[in-house]
This record gives sequence, C-alpha cells and structure tokens, in this order.
Amino acid sequence: MLEKDVSTLLGFRESIRVVDATLRDGGLCNDHHFKDEFVRALYQTNIKAGVDYMELGYKGSKELFSKEKYGKWKFTDDEDVLDVIGENQGTGLKLAVMADVGRCDYKNDIRPRSESPIDMIRVATYINQMPAALHMIEDAKNKGYEVSCNIMAISAAQEADVKVALSMLGQSPVDVVYIVDSFGALYPEQINRIADIYLDAAGKYGKDIGMHAHNNQQLAFANTLEACGDGADYLDATYGGLGRGAGNCSMENLLGILRNPKYQFYPVLKFVEEYVLPLKKEGVLWGYDLQYLMTGIFNQHPRTAIAFTKEGRTDYTEYYKELMIID
Amino acid sequence: MLEKDVSTLLGFRESIRVVDATLRDGGLCNDHHFKDEFVRALYQTNIKAGVDYMELGYKGSKELFSKEKYGKWKFTDDEDVLDVIGENQGTGLKLAVMADVGRCDYKNDIRPRSESPIDMIRVATYINQMPAALHMIEDAKNKGYEVSCNIMAISAAQEADVKVALSMLGQSPVDVVYIVDSFGALYPEQINRIADIYLDAAGKYGKDIGMHAHNNQQLAFANTLEACGDGADYLDATYGGLGRGAGNCSMENLLGILRNPKYQFYPVLKFVEEYVLPLKKEGVLWGYDLQYLMTGIFNQHPRTAIAFTKEGRTDYTEYYKELMIID
Repeated sequence: MLEKDVSTLLGFRESIRVVDATLRDGGLCNDHHFKDEFVRALYQTNIKAGVDYMELGYKGSKELFSKEKYGKWKFTDDEDVLDVIGENQGTGLKLAVMADVGRCDYKNDIRPRSESPIDMIRVATYINQMPAALHMIEDAKNKGYEVSCNIMAISAAQEADVKVALSMLGQSPVDVVYIVDSFGALYPEQINRIADIYLDAAGKYGKDIGMHAHNNQQLAFANTLEACGDGADYLDATYGGLGRGAGNCSMENLLGILRNPKYQFYPVLKFVEEYVLPLKKEGVLWGYDLQYLMTGIFNQHPRTAIAFTKEGRTDYTEYYKELMIID
Repeated sequence: MLEKDVSTLLGFRESIRVVDATLRDGGLCNDHHFKDEFVRALYQTNIKAGVDYMELGYKGSKELFSKEKYGKWKFTDDEDVLDVIGENQGTGLKLAVMADVGRCDYKNDIRPRSESPIDMIRVATYINQMPAALHMIEDAKNKGYEVSCNIMAISAAQEADVKVALSMLGQSPVDVVYIVDSFGALYPEQINRIADIYLDAAGKYGKDIGMHAHNNQQLAFANTLEACGDGADYLDATYGGLGRGAGNCSMENLLGILRNPKYQFYPVLKFVEEYVLPLKKEGVLWGYDLQYLMTGIFNQHPRTAIAFTKEGRTDYTEYYKELMIID
C-alpha cells in the first residue's frame, strides 16, 4: 500500500488528475439544460484552472431519452461538442463523456476517437452488469479512447463481489477504475479500507484508481482527500459541488489543497460566483441538507430525498419516519 | 498511539463523550440572545439524545461586556441557569460553561461547584496566555469542577510551543485538553498528526483529549471523526452546525455514526427542524460558504469573512483579492 502522501501537504504528486464532473453530475439537477454560454465559460475556466479532464455529459440512448425533455448534454453528440466548444486542440484539457450500461447505444453513438473531439469514455455500471460493462470498455478501447469504469453504489455491494469485479476489470483494457460512493454513505475510514482493495488490484494489473464522492454526510471532500492520500489519482469534483442530491466534492475545496502549481484557485472561484451560484437563484436544487444526511446514514439511493427537496418539504422528522418504517 | 477504533464502525467506545456547544459557539452568531424556550427545549433534547455535556455559554466579564448588548448566556449566571433549566439533578447530562482567559472575572463569577448547577469549566486560552489559563484551571479545580482547556488557534501556533503548553497542562489539574481548529484550517491528516502529539502528552499525564472543529472547509465532521478515531474522547458538536462563521461539526452528523445505544438521532433531528432552522429565517447567519473556505485555506481568523457575510456581499472574487493583497 502507498504511503499517504497528502500528509506532506506541501508537496504534490504529478500523477494526480482533476476531473471536472460539473456538466455530467450537475446535469442530473437540471436535466442537462445548460446554456451554451455556461458550457463555454466552464470550458475556458477548466483550462485556466489547470483541470485535467472535463466530463461533458452522458451518451444517453435516444431511444430511452427524449430530446424534448433533456438538454443536449444528456446525449453529448460530437456535433454539439464541436459547435459549443470546438475541436479542443492543444489545450491540455481532455474531454470525457459518461456511458451508462444499458442506457447507451454505444455501438452507434460513440465514433472512433480519430473522428471525435472526445478523449475519454467513462463507463458507468452497477456491479451486476459487469459483462456488459466489459463489452463497452472493449468497444471504447478499440475505438482508441482512454477508458475508465465507475462501479456504482458499492456501499450496498458485497466486498467479495467487488473483488471479482476488480479482477475482471484488471484483465480488461480499462485504464482507470473508480471508487464511487453513489449514496454518500461511506466514512473516510471505510474509504481507506476500500481504497486498499482497489489499489491492490490496480497494482497487480497496472491500472489507475479514481474517486467519485457525494456529499450526503458532508464528507465528499474528506473522502476524496482520503482516497487521494491512499493513492487514488483521478479525483472527481464539481464547481460549487453541483451534482445530484447533496452534490459532489467541490472543485474549490479540492484545488484549495492540491499544490501542483498548474492548478489555479481564482478562476474556479470566479466561475462559481458568476455562473454556479446564479443557478441556485434560478431554482436548480443541490447541496447538503438533512434529508441527504439521512439517506446517507441509511445507505440508500437519494431518490426519495431528491423528491422531498423538489416538493419543498421541510418536515424532516416525518421523512425520517418514512425511511424507518420500510419493511 | 491508539488504533483507529472508529474503523470498526459497528462498535463503540464507552469513553466517548458528546459535548453540545450549540448555545456557546452558536451564541457568537446572535450575541447569545436565545429565548428561554429554545434553551429549555435544547436541554430536554440533549437528555433525550443521550448527549453527555451541554455547554450553556460564557462566563463573560460584566466589566468588559454589557448586559444591554448581550443575552444572558454571555454571562451564564447560576441564577439564570436555575431559572431557565433548574437544578439538573439526576439527568445524566452535565452542564458546562466556557471561561475565556482575560475576558472572565473567574474569581468572583465562578462559585464553588457545591453551590452551582454547573459541572464543568472549559477554560479557553491562546497559547501565549498559558500561565493565566493555569491559574484559572487551578481555581476551577479547587472549587470542585471538572476542568477542560481549549488551546485556541493552534493552526497558527508553533508545534514546539504546543508541546510546551501540553506539558504545562499535563502537570496541571486539568482533566481534558482540546484540539481546537479555530480557523477551520486543518485537514484530517494534520489532525491525525496533531492528535498524536496531544495523545502522547495525554498518555504521559493521564489526561483526556477533546476535539472542537470548525466547518470552513467542510471538514468539521471529518476532522472530528479523525480525532475520535485517533483516540480523542470529548467531541464537540452543535445542532445544525450552529456556530461562529462556517459553524461546527453538526450533532446530527456525529450521532449518525456513534453507535453507543444511549445516543438517539431522532430528538436531534426534531430540534434542528423545530428550533435551529427557524433561526436561519430569523436572520441568524452561520454555515459553510466560500468566504469561510478562503479564510480556512489562508489559515486566518474568519472575522473578515463574518463581516463579508453580515454585509450581504457575494463578490467572492473581490474578497479573495482583499485577502491576497495583505502585505
């Protein structure tokens, strides 16, 4: 196991990669209806801030999801990327998209990398979908992409199953495997134990490890730091913590501690002030609150907490009883 | 050094003590103007929730602070405690007050414990005031109290000085020494290193260690968990995180993980819903925001961030420049 080298705090690790997941995870809060100006400003900010990857959205199946309901970043067509952002040549920032197992027509919708502005495909899977995830990983790799895999909701998975999944991924051409705390249910000491398991597999097969955290228990930043200190190199964050439910590790928190001089705090702050906080005024809902704490503690998907929030409810004690009385 | 026994997560440590600091640290947000009903409900909630100590407020000097400006919990006279709460007999909940070095007429205002409803005196000191703190500790101990000492603002102190202070406290009659992250500037890995230093001294002299965290970097809960896992037994928390600036470790976060069956989550949630969240609507200001993140990152007292908040400013980038251009 690696020494916790964040403990030096004043140095930095060259291998760390910061991944901006604002449009993708944040898109779950507004059905991906971001203005083009927002996306362009975010793109420019990521370049200025030294962010390594920008996740633009999902490659959602057009059979399952309608273009009427969802904004363009639910589908992230190459044409839209080129139209809004351009070819992204020579910026140092790589572009990523998420492809969900079972919710993506990847064979048709993902073109060869040589014909696309996208650099990385992030395959997201539940642990019981591993064979389908492996097909998608192979497809993306064959098309020339960097490929990561997010095994979602591991706080509700069996540790033995996670180990099998890691072994399957180890033998696949995937580049990065993510620890994903979908329910915001994990404590730093659990992240530490889980990171050991992931890093063992990573060391054996020559893969990198990433961390994607949710803020249900106000631990998204702490858990990201913990995983980073344990040896995870790919760190997901979002501006202002914008993301599903309680949101994610906030970019401004993360860049406040990363010491690589390429990372710049000020442009992040500026974007949060000028673009992210105004979303709150427009009614986009995200961020820590008691209902998310409770689904985190109960290790549940936050969907009921999101509904509670949308309905404008503040009867937290009633909600607690609703969570408790499930037989 | 102790094994991190929070890592078991499903067990609990009998020696842990939860300290409710809502009225004291929260009082810094409203000049201690709490309604009697609020205080009574909080007291009853603490009993129901199994909280071990309730810190009522400061023993503020009446020469320095006026009764016109401040509410009664700035002074926490025994008469007011008896009037609002009663004698607190046989509840299992102990009552505490904070006495600041240089801002407390402790010789006159703190009566012998046998004549007072108070159980613990919490002496708060800056590291350059240690001899005066020791006088106060001895005075309180001689009067029969449990005594703790908070060395404030250690993120801006010299480690060698902290060690000297711990040695002085070790030889004093103090019972508990607190790690206090006044500026919310410390990361969990720093808390780990600092806890080692405190626990070394504690082991040598037979003292207990406590943790008091601030949420400037969204790390108050994580740092409290870290210190607890390292061996700190006295854990400060406040309902809804109510406390100066970015606030403190929230009680509902903390009781969400502590497994001792005496601790109850539901009464905490109920009090937050019925009493704490309404304070926000009344205009009491606290909680994580970007300005506190910045003073945390810069390891500064949050007073300028508190002023920024009170003025209703949202020009975070301008504020950042104000922090940066200090020569």
